[in-house]
Amino acid sequence: MGPRLAGSPGDRAAVAWGQALLRELGFSKVRAEEVTVTAWERGVETATVVSPYPQKLVVTALGGSVGTPPEGITAPVVEMKTLEALEEAVKADPDAVRGKIVFFSRRMARSGEGPGYGANVPMRSSGAAKAGPHGALAVLVRSIGTSTSRFAHTGSTNYADGGPRIPAAAVSNADADLLERLLARGPVKVKVVLGCRPLPPSTSANVIGEIPGSEKPDEVVVISGHLDSWDLGTGAIDDGAGCAIAIEAARLIAEGVRRPRRTIRVVLYANEESGLAGGKGYAARHAAELPKHAGAFEADSGTGAPLGFSWSAADTLEPALAAVAKLLEPLGAGTLRKGGAGGADVSPMAPAGVPLFGLRQETGRYFDFHHTADDTFDKIESPSLDRAAASVAALAFAVADLPGIHALPSSESR
Amino acid sequence: MGPRLAGSPGDRAAVAWGQALLRELGFSKVRAEEVTVTAWERGVETATVVSPYPQKLVVTALGGSVGTPPEGITAPVVEMKTLEALEEAVKADPDAVRGKIVFFSRRMARSGEGPGYGANVPMRSSGAAKAGPHGALAVLVRSIGTSTSRFAHTGSTNYADGGPRIPAAAVSNADADLLERLLARGPVKVKVVLGCRPLPPSTSANVIGEIPGSEKPDEVVVISGHLDSWDLGTGAIDDGAGCAIAIEAARLIAEGVRRPRRTIRVVLYANEESGLAGGKGYAARHAAELPKHAGAFEADSGTGAPLGFSWSAADTLEPALAAVAKLLEPLGAGTLRKGGAGGADVSPMAPAGVPLFGLRQETGRYFDFHHTADDTFDKIESPSLDRAAASVAALAFAVADLPGIHALPSSESR
Repeated sequence: MGPRLAGSPGDRAAVAWGQALLRELGFSKVRAEEVTVTAWERGVETATVVSPYPQKLVVTALGGSVGTPPEGITAPVVEMKTLEALEEAVKADPDAVRGKIVFFSRRMARSGEGPGYGANVPMRSSGAAKAGPHGALAVLVRSIGTSTSRFAHTGSTNYADGGPRIPAAAVSNADADLLERLLARGPVKVKVVLGCRPLPPSTSANVIGEIPGSEKPDEVVVISGHLDSWDLGTGAIDDGAGCAIAIEAARLIAEGVRRPRRTIRVVLYANEESGLAGGKGYAARHAAELPKHAGAFEADSGTGAPLGFSWSAADTLEPALAAVAKLLEPLGAGTLRKGGAGGADVSPMAPAGVPLFGLRQETGRYFDFHHTADDTFDKIESPSLDRAAASVAALAFAVADLPGIHALPSSESR
Repeated sequence: MGPRLAGSPGDRAAVAWGQALLRELGFSKVRAEEVTVTAWERGVETATVVSPYPQKLVVTALGGSVGTPPEGITAPVVEMKTLEALEEAVKADPDAVRGKIVFFSRRMARSGEGPGYGANVPMRSSGAAKAGPHGALAVLVRSIGTSTSRFAHTGSTNYADGGPRIPAAAVSNADADLLERLLARGPVKVKVVLGCRPLPPSTSANVIGEIPGSEKPDEVVVISGHLDSWDLGTGAIDDGAGCAIAIEAARLIAEGVRRPRRTIRVVLYANEESGLAGGKGYAARHAAELPKHAGAFEADSGTGAPLGFSWSAADTLEPALAAVAKLLEPLGAGTLRKGGAGGADVSPMAPAGVPLFGLRQETGRYFDFHHTADDTFDKIESPSLDRAAASVAALAFAVADLPGIHALPSSESR
């Protein structure tokens, strides 16, 4: 059904598709639990260097951004490496960014598991909120991505309540390189035209299906991905791949010689990308049931080969996990890392002590495609995805079959 | 100066820049020899799958194409693998493509030196001309390129004199894959909107500078690239790289301990991409001088490492070339291949028997970027480019310094 921006027709089609698929696979209690989601629409998006010479730039509006006036915003560009650099600049000169377009230029590092990503997200999510109050007219953020190609990487941006709302766009890495080179030589003026606009809140849904537990059907292990996507590509790796891992892992468990003791609950979350309404809605709606959640897992790292698991739970769970890890060594997924587990959508369950699990995957190319028009089906690596699903099936089965629930003490939960 | 579509402001800026640079480097007789070029303007370009479900496609108009009506063309898609498949289909059913959008789907093979390219060019250059007379409404051509990313590769298309002129666009490989998958399942309807249009002929120029020969200044060796580019990227690899190789090779020769006997003439051709007006214009204007051309070389294969040379000249040249090749072995450029030499711009000199030379380069990634928005400066590989320039300098010096001219007999020229 193509791209699935929260609340869009594609998103609604995906909710219907998800329910139909889970029913076809024979899961129980298949349903859509409605949530209210933020909605936003992309429009025209162009940017051009006006001086020192005309040159198109590849940009894409950040999700949630307001648009520019129809004639665009034309202004000098001022480069800031980071939010901290902005803070220092306006401390030294309160007019440092007034009347200008702020260009956040720090580059994301490529690495096996992509830790460079988190370090750059604040510029995308808060750059406009931080620059607006100092009189900046708009914000351009170097794409948070590892590719040097001319794709701009979108992602959500937020404004402070009551603060000025200035337009914000990502610029492709190749064009960010060009801007840096031009700025090193002298003044640069850019014109940005963004037709995007926030829309009234809309409705979407978490899609849910279950394999009832054989002994403790009221206790639950969640395995999940998110159904929504950005609108530029088709969301094949983010998070079509995660949904596929969760659904296929559940299917493998359902197909097994016996069912685990607890219920396996597949959740395909709504609205991960721009507000987390699905994850928050699930935790709120199921609050009374969370003490009976033996674990929650989300796959949201693309299509790369599985390396192992991260986990956040009581230490008493460790021996059981070590036994699963041992089983997964032939798949290359035998490593365990304690702490920091859980995808965005399952994180709202952490305060209730729900044990969280994350699949560590190779993400060498993930951030080449992430949040771009290039996130399309041809990027899916089927063999890796199969191994990822098998790994999750093994972990989920084990956790669903243990005698007790190894809840994370609330003192340790995030 | 950014992109340099023939006759555009960027192209004119490049003609001025080229002359200034050649003067700055101390070359003689720096001049711009005017030629009349075709001109064309790109406009809006969008395509969307209308059914079975809405999905944006990444397309780009082919150079020279007419546009669609403002409301676009919405029609069923019919897939043809090749021009030959089209011919067979309309032989079997004269209405096979009537009222439809023809999608040429054959994929270009990736290979070390990119021979897959030439095999697919006819679909781009003649697809619209061949499908139009059978009632097709528009043509989509799978991008001639090796990347799986969502860049559409442009390139020129031609219409038959007096024949119908239907719009033609390239579709990215990722989107071509999608179309194939959808077509395998059932009918597909697509809407294409192209705002492009041919413009009245314009003026550009071949930029020329020389290093006068020490003994035979009226005899000439041409080393060249082309100054124009497509408009989507900045033409860094096509053919900024080739211009850099030609200029740097000449600079190296000028810097040497002694000048070669013949004149080295750097030519930065106009309008290679859409009509070859520069190459044809040079051959016409210098027709009387061609018998005194000891060789002509064009670099137009990007930024990859040099592998050696191709050559088309009298067999008597072979020993001298073998000696140069031997010298170039340490640079990895020691191979020689007889026949098929000469870039597009120097090919109009072949009928006059001018010996032609081509630099064979690694082109493994060249067709990932070729004719796309992703042909930008960051794709330049400086070390390879340096080696390419040094190789061309050695070859050009040797040819310019030989006792005689080893003209290709006209019976062997193309």
